[in-house]
Amino acid sequence: MQIITGFHAVEEIMRSAKCTADGAKPHIEYAKPGPRIKKILEDAKRRNIPAKETTMAELDRLTAELSKTAQDHRGIVLIIEGEQKAAQNFVQFEQTITEISKKDSATVVLLDSVTDPHNVGAIIRSCDQFGADLVIMPERHGASESDVIMRSSAGAAAWVQQSVVTNLSRAVEKLKENGFWIYGADAGGSALSATSFSGKVAIVMGSEGSGMSRLVREKCDVILSIPTCGKLDSLNVSVAAGILLYEVHRQALSKIN
Amino acid sequence: MQIITGFHAVEEIMRSAKCTADGAKPHIEYAKPGPRIKKILEDAKRRNIPAKETTMAELDRLTAELSKTAQDHRGIVLIIEGEQKAAQNFVQFEQTITEISKKDSATVVLLDSVTDPHNVGAIIRSCDQFGADLVIMPERHGASESDVIMRSSAGAAAWVQQSVVTNLSRAVEKLKENGFWIYGADAGGSALSATSFSGKVAIVMGSEGSGMSRLVREKCDVILSIPTCGKLDSLNVSVAAGILLYEVHRQALSKIN
Repeated sequence: MQIITGFHAVEEIMRSAKCTADGAKPHIEYAKPGPRIKKILEDAKRRNIPAKETTMAELDRLTAELSKTAQDHRGIVLIIEGEQKAAQNFVQFEQTITEISKKDSATVVLLDSVTDPHNVGAIIRSCDQFGADLVIMPERHGASESDVIMRSSAGAAAWVQQSVVTNLSRAVEKLKENGFWIYGADAGGSALSATSFSGKVAIVMGSEGSGMSRLVREKCDVILSIPTCGKLDSLNVSVAAGILLYEVHRQALSKIN
Repeated sequence: MQIITGFHAVEEIMRSAKCTADGAKPHIEYAKPGPRIKKILEDAKRRNIPAKETTMAELDRLTAELSKTAQDHRGIVLIIEGEQKAAQNFVQFEQTITEISKKDSATVVLLDSVTDPHNVGAIIRSCDQFGADLVIMPERHGASESDVIMRSSAGAAAWVQQSVVTNLSRAVEKLKENGFWIYGADAGGSALSATSFSGKVAIVMGSEGSGMSRLVREKCDVILSIPTCGKLDSLNVSVAAGILLYEVHRQALSKIN
């Protein structure tokens, strides 16, 4: 059984294959419905997803085992019975890269020690919005973190392709063999706005605390920085990833038009 | 007494006027210190901020009244005794706008029903990084939300200027009188990348669910959209704000260089 909370995530998962596939048994439980929940209930009705009114206390109980963020159900949860698989759209790395590499242009994002599931989810959401092909991460998150990722991605983690690799540095090599140019996001690099992207682009995001690991950093073709002027050292990593993906997408669009 | 959690927030608040001002009585409590906490303790020592070792259970107790996010102390809290004022750098709206408007160029951000404190905090952090002058919001957040804002902003909320106004639509009018051009971020507008920013720029961000209020939207000079291609309707609002601020900053820099 999988329990999803968060208005956006509930809406998106209702639309996804997780709820429409044969054998999927989704249902909703809700309490004290305000306008936002009523809108979701209308949508559920259209999709033949049953909804049952219950109490806030029962929703608290249902979500008690979830992460702290996911516990904040705000009066509605989506429950998928019998669901055993991870909700995230995990794909096999080597095979996917071979497939993606047949295209003239592609964008992949590598997460090097970006562990906060809120940030992972927000980055996956931006990958959906800017058409990135794959998110590569070094480890599989636990179930409660997976809930947060699903929610922070507003459901996008159900369809954006994600691969877990045991060795990020070797994944970078594989990308290079397949014609990808590797851009590492870090301080002290070339200005993002002066960088021209084309073809196969791999963006490496490091953790906010300590940046990229040395091994991965050394394998980057270019270190890229977003020009800033603040007192803090850095942007939030998901905001930085969003800006990089925006810039890659903007440049691709300007070539078409 | 104010209790701050989150590695980034603790570090930034230690550096801020909240801890260095006359009469400020900050101290740290920590448990089971790993390398990240040890680094913070060294910094605290340099700043003459006392630190006391305690138990995880005691830290849980200390943070029990905070919001769920802020409860995740990860072994360290910064406590400022006798602190009554809000930690956020609130300034008076009319006076600040009069001041800012004397400059040739300025950037302000208006939050129209962006209520999630994580998003408010992340936007304030981006405002620091891209040199925005003021964040304007329609209501003051409660104490527990203020904790989350401080933390999500990585401490930037302690110095980025913020104004609370009773009527956002009237604030927009005031900005117009002072020579600001009002850009509303919403679907179906002009492409961001085709927009040329200069002088006094005001960016209005609407909520992810329902966008800007009608009254505010009608007062915008331009509706701006970030070109996207995903299945979801929208980017995370803090990522979208980060991209808009990046673009304004990028254009300003390209004029200087």
